[in-house]
Amino acid sequence: MIAVIGARSCDQQVYELAFQAGQELARRGYTIVCGGLGGVMEAACKGARSAGGRTVGILPGVDPAAANQFVDIAIATGLGAGRNLLIIHSAEAVLAINGSYGTLSELAFALQLNKPVVGLGTWNISEKIITATSAQQAVEQISRLVAIHESG
Amino acid sequence: MIAVIGARSCDQQVYELAFQAGQELARRGYTIVCGGLGGVMEAACKGARSAGGRTVGILPGVDPAAANQFVDIAIATGLGAGRNLLIIHSAEAVLAINGSYGTLSELAFALQLNKPVVGLGTWNISEKIITATSAQQAVEQISRLVAIHESG
Amino acid sequence: MIAVIGARSCDQQVYELAFQAGQELARRGYTIVCGGLGGVMEAACKGARSAGGRTVGILPGVDPAAANQFVDIAIATGLGAGRNLLIIHSAEAVLAINGSYGTLSELAFALQLNKPVVGLGTWNISEKIITATSAQQAVEQISRLVAIHESG
Amino acid sequence: MIAVIGARSCDQQVYELAFQAGQELARRGYTIVCGGLGGVMEAACKGARSAGGRTVGILPGVDPAAANQFVDIAIATGLGAGRNLLIIHSAEAVLAINGSYGTLSELAFALQLNKPVVGLGTWNISEKIITATSAQQAVEQISRLVAIHESG
Repeated sequence: MIAVIGARSCDQQVYELAFQAGQELARRGYTIVCGGLGGVMEAACKGARSAGGRTVGILPGVDPAAANQFVDIAIATGLGAGRNLLIIHSAEAVLAINGSYGTLSELAFALQLNKPVVGLGTWNISEKIITATSAQQAVEQISRLVAIHESG
Repeated sequence: MIAVIGARSCDQQVYELAFQAGQELARRGYTIVCGGLGGVMEAACKGARSAGGRTVGILPGVDPAAANQFVDIAIATGLGAGRNLLIIHSAEAVLAINGSYGTLSELAFALQLNKPVVGLGTWNISEKIITATSAQQAVEQISRLVAIHESG
Repeated sequence: MIAVIGARSCDQQVYELAFQAGQELARRGYTIVCGGLGGVMEAACKGARSAGGRTVGILPGVDPAAANQFVDIAIATGLGAGRNLLIIHSAEAVLAINGSYGTLSELAFALQLNKPVVGLGTWNISEKIITATSAQQAVEQISRLVAIHESG
Repeated sequence: MIAVIGARSCDQQVYELAFQAGQELARRGYTIVCGGLGGVMEAACKGARSAGGRTVGILPGVDPAAANQFVDIAIATGLGAGRNLLIIHSAEAVLAINGSYGTLSELAFALQLNKPVVGLGTWNISEKIITATSAQQAVEQISRLVAIHESG
């Protein structure tokens, strides 16, 4: 599973980028795990679904029905923002798209736990975040990092 | 999603019962959510898989690879026994098979949250737990309770 | 620290019992940890305070101000019922007074984690729960069990 | 309660700064809440104790005995890095001293939850973090922000 993280509301350009990333991840056979809500999370799930992929949403609340309509498996945690850490634990690698403070907490956890991270226009907080300039390039980097991580 | 709860080690008879329950749930189109480890959890996942069903494991630790081999989607929580509550939140109804103290905590949460519960040889702590005597009868009761719950 | 667990609403007799237990625990120098809300939790904190003791409330919500007025240290978890496990982890021993399903989940965790448990009119689910018939007797049992636990 | 956040290992200069901050917070009557381990957390607790203050440690593990020796109240969460969010929820304001990725996750949560934050040589990620150049100045800012927050 690959985590796609980003804000629950975003502009059209970021939405499109997240859609493409979800689509490309699904084409390569990855399952997407995200926070299950709107914005970047919804776009990535919608993109993955459009390519026949599988999507998991790890929700902050207690109601699985709060997930966006493109989530296949909704995990209701009741942990609030504490669910961010579960997204990182469950993923092999992390793709961050844009994002606000919630995304920043996820990036911090990913770096702390030494998970591979690729960023598209996200927080510039560490050299360990591999930056990409397109959804396709980002997913190529994810694939490469997962291969290194698995062999390492 | 239907939760199947029970101990991580169990005898052959209970294993067989959990296998049958998983199989029957999958035949009716339900996704199984469980704690992702051995015993009853493994048996239910194995049964669901044998009928082409989908399985989710919500793990206590931080490593998705700790899931039993019949789990499709492994959620690594790092919450220890605290992950029990997430299984209940994520499920529409709960099927308890045998079980020890971990299962008891899950039953307590299910009753507290008014989730429908069916029991097969499990803790006798409340009249709200519908008892069944076979895997098939248990899954029939689950179906009935979910239908009532959804219409109510 | 000793956990006092019980329902957030209770009748006058149970309230009085919890008050006496809190008082007696404080006299023996214990800090009380509880769920920080009303009923048994409030009574135990009030009793402890009346004897100059210290009280900790581990709350389900995100607002420390939700604690009852007799809590000295309010921990806001945002975990909902998931905070029950933290009360058990933080305590050396557990005193259960009456209680509903929330208390049952705490008892289950305490038994799973091998914490000493004394019960006053609570769930009869295990021989490992030492039963007492008065607040004073219950606290004497707690003292004895903590001494054994520490030396063991 | 005021949260003091920072890395579990730090150099002598940062340790001294955290000690002074803890001391100054205690002099003003604040209880300190922190992650309960070493480095900045230990130094702040030691400083607070030296001024007669009270200290709370919210630990990642399940054993209260893992707290540093200057913690009065040890909360064992079993949540791993997920305990970082509880520190923020429980505090009125946050003082960040230096810090690594764990501290970054706490800053992210504090900013997301609109808690007042003062920083001493910490992550430069938001204009909402008030920067200070000495422990005394930092605690003065904390006092001021808490007063504004309470009146607002």
